[in-house]
Amino acid sequence: MRIAVLGGDGYCGWATALYLSKHGHDVAIVDNYIRRKWDIDLGVSTLTPILSLRNRLQLWKDLTGNVIEVFEGDMRDYAFLSAHIREFEPDTVIHFAEQRSAPYSMIDREHATFTQVNNIVGTLNLLFALREFKPDCHLVKLGTMGEYGTPNIDIEEGYIRIEHNGRSDVLPYPKQAGSFYHLSKVHDSHNIMFCCRAWGLRATDLNQGVVYGTTTDETALDEGLVNRFDYDEIFGTALNRFCIEAAAGHPITVYGKGGQTRGFLDIRDTIRCVEIACHHPANPGEFRVFNQFTEQFSVLELAHMVEAAGEKFGLSVVIDHIPDPRVEAEAHYYNAKNSKLIDLGLQPHMLSDSLIDSLINIALKYKNRIDTSVFMPQVNWRNASNNRNGTVRTPSGVVMEPSEV
Amino acid sequence: MRIAVLGGDGYCGWATALYLSKHGHDVAIVDNYIRRKWDIDLGVSTLTPILSLRNRLQLWKDLTGNVIEVFEGDMRDYAFLSAHIREFEPDTVIHFAEQRSAPYSMIDREHATFTQVNNIVGTLNLLFALREFKPDCHLVKLGTMGEYGTPNIDIEEGYIRIEHNGRSDVLPYPKQAGSFYHLSKVHDSHNIMFCCRAWGLRATDLNQGVVYGTTTDETALDEGLVNRFDYDEIFGTALNRFCIEAAAGHPITVYGKGGQTRGFLDIRDTIRCVEIACHHPANPGEFRVFNQFTEQFSVLELAHMVEAAGEKFGLSVVIDHIPDPRVEAEAHYYNAKNSKLIDLGLQPHMLSDSLIDSLINIALKYKNRIDTSVFMPQVNWRNASNNRNGTVRTPSGVVMEPSEV
Repeated sequence: MRIAVLGGDGYCGWATALYLSKHGHDVAIVDNYIRRKWDIDLGVSTLTPILSLRNRLQLWKDLTGNVIEVFEGDMRDYAFLSAHIREFEPDTVIHFAEQRSAPYSMIDREHATFTQVNNIVGTLNLLFALREFKPDCHLVKLGTMGEYGTPNIDIEEGYIRIEHNGRSDVLPYPKQAGSFYHLSKVHDSHNIMFCCRAWGLRATDLNQGVVYGTTTDETALDEGLVNRFDYDEIFGTALNRFCIEAAAGHPITVYGKGGQTRGFLDIRDTIRCVEIACHHPANPGEFRVFNQFTEQFSVLELAHMVEAAGEKFGLSVVIDHIPDPRVEAEAHYYNAKNSKLIDLGLQPHMLSDSLIDSLINIALKYKNRIDTSVFMPQVNWRNASNNRNGTVRTPSGVVMEPSEV
Repeated sequence: MRIAVLGGDGYCGWATALYLSKHGHDVAIVDNYIRRKWDIDLGVSTLTPILSLRNRLQLWKDLTGNVIEVFEGDMRDYAFLSAHIREFEPDTVIHFAEQRSAPYSMIDREHATFTQVNNIVGTLNLLFALREFKPDCHLVKLGTMGEYGTPNIDIEEGYIRIEHNGRSDVLPYPKQAGSFYHLSKVHDSHNIMFCCRAWGLRATDLNQGVVYGTTTDETALDEGLVNRFDYDEIFGTALNRFCIEAAAGHPITVYGKGGQTRGFLDIRDTIRCVEIACHHPANPGEFRVFNQFTEQFSVLELAHMVEAAGEKFGLSVVIDHIPDPRVEAEAHYYNAKNSKLIDLGLQPHMLSDSLIDSLINIALKYKNRIDTSVFMPQVNWRNASNNRNGTVRTPSGVVMEPSEV
């Protein structure tokens, strides 16, 4: 299968590209390296030192003989993107190429509008390019479980049957996103659903939970293939950040009471879920939604698991409840369905002590690279006009405004 | 009350600004005249000759003594918009300032992305400006009934109680928009809902039906105050366009079977609904939704009403069923609720023969200005990459792309 991985230089994208290349597919990576530039803007970096994309792909070829093509460019540039689709002719496009951090989108107005315009325009360009040049291509799009928010009823996979006033219909599940980033994914979902209906495109929206872990069989082949591992308040997600905080002797930063419950999954399941979606494409005209997570945890449950694991390493782990910088319920009902991918063959890696041990081991291995100043949240949801006191630069890749053109 | 009317040079905005000025409010119009530029791009014009904004406002002042301030600029320019909020200090902002044509948004990729970026960024800028400089200001935002699509259950006003697996919650009503324009309003709704929750802003979303008519008590004062009256396939909506087609001796262009049913309202009710929303503001933190229409009709019902009215004028009216250029159901269930504005005092102007007579009279008065070449649809939903064979220019005000900067 010819598979284009948009955003293949990022955390999930890199692991996915190697896995699909290993499993016999013709893989191309499309990336503009903007994820690396955001680290520069924010003054942070991945715990694990990563090579340039071209160097890590050369190493991959040297080790396995597999060639992954690279198309360097920006999805907001339609000429570039459509040329890629024409030239590579993918059977499947996996679209990871969005700004994916909620705190980043909440820094200030510039980062909010950048996130929404970047994500929406990139996805619209992709939809038009597919329609024009490869309408039978299967679009596998990364969404987020955060699109649903925390409703007081069970969360279904994309759609829900509603009985109302004696009638019935299956309708898109209501969305209550909690940041400008999560909202951008809601916008994407509506746009893609419409294009499937209007143009007969085929798409699978993977509403992914919070991903943890970093090592896959492929990235473990050589240290030069190591995946990025983010632990800062902007791009570091809960479990990964907690493990590094524990290794660094820093209190684990639980936001508020920690009753916030979400779906989580191992990055090894991310790549497997994406593979399953590729092998079972949506039908022409179908907009299909899978909830992509394997287990639910509250943030405090995760903190306690890291605390217990840390003790085995002789680390004295402290859990700190700091004021929640987000606007979210700290205790709520949460029951999300996730059977569709399992029905198609996913065998989950459940979160185990050994996985947490391995994360702490990685953190200890790279301990001298840990910057403990980036753990504490500086971006506050309620104060999104002057977060971080002007210490953050205008986002790389920002679209110019009329007054500036 | 100090009221800013964003987009006050347009069809609904102009009628609203005059009405509120007449009724004792301090009104300011914010506009960048982009609606007039789109006419130039498309080679169309309003049936009724309209003066420049400054001239029509001078006339309004001469006739009534009421001053309406003008702030000329683009909502995508945050420096301009925030300066307006700081300087005018509105108690209420009425936001009409969006690209509001579904066919326009479906012309091609450039018009699709322009519509979404223009509408989303303008509204995000407004939300940030209110949060920063006037957080107690009431935002009255024009949405559209088209956000709901045509579900097989009753359409409620913004929210619906869902019973599911033994639990219950009131959630945002599912959205199934049918064009990139309608989708932009869905995106706005989600963004505004979030900002009300996160920042305590107060907003009323008016999900408006299709507006017909042109004359209000205020615009009738003098021919120089006449409202614009669009009848082309891009900006002319169903009933208005049908009346002009009848007057011009052109077949009425019913798309498909004409069973498409929608909510409609008289422009005199638009201004009254907006006034009601202003006088009954949402609470801080509340995102309130009103369905703003007075009657439901199918497109074919409207065509038959125009046919009957035309006979009284001695016009031989032909109804033409042309292939539906849109992707929509031509026969479907439709039952939308609209009690909230009526409960607050709206007394609807029901569509009557005399109103259709007056529209045909206006059409006959300006008959020499009718361009019959603009009736037939050239924009096809299924073919949104090369509609109108390249005869349409890049939209005025388009945001430049990375490759062009």
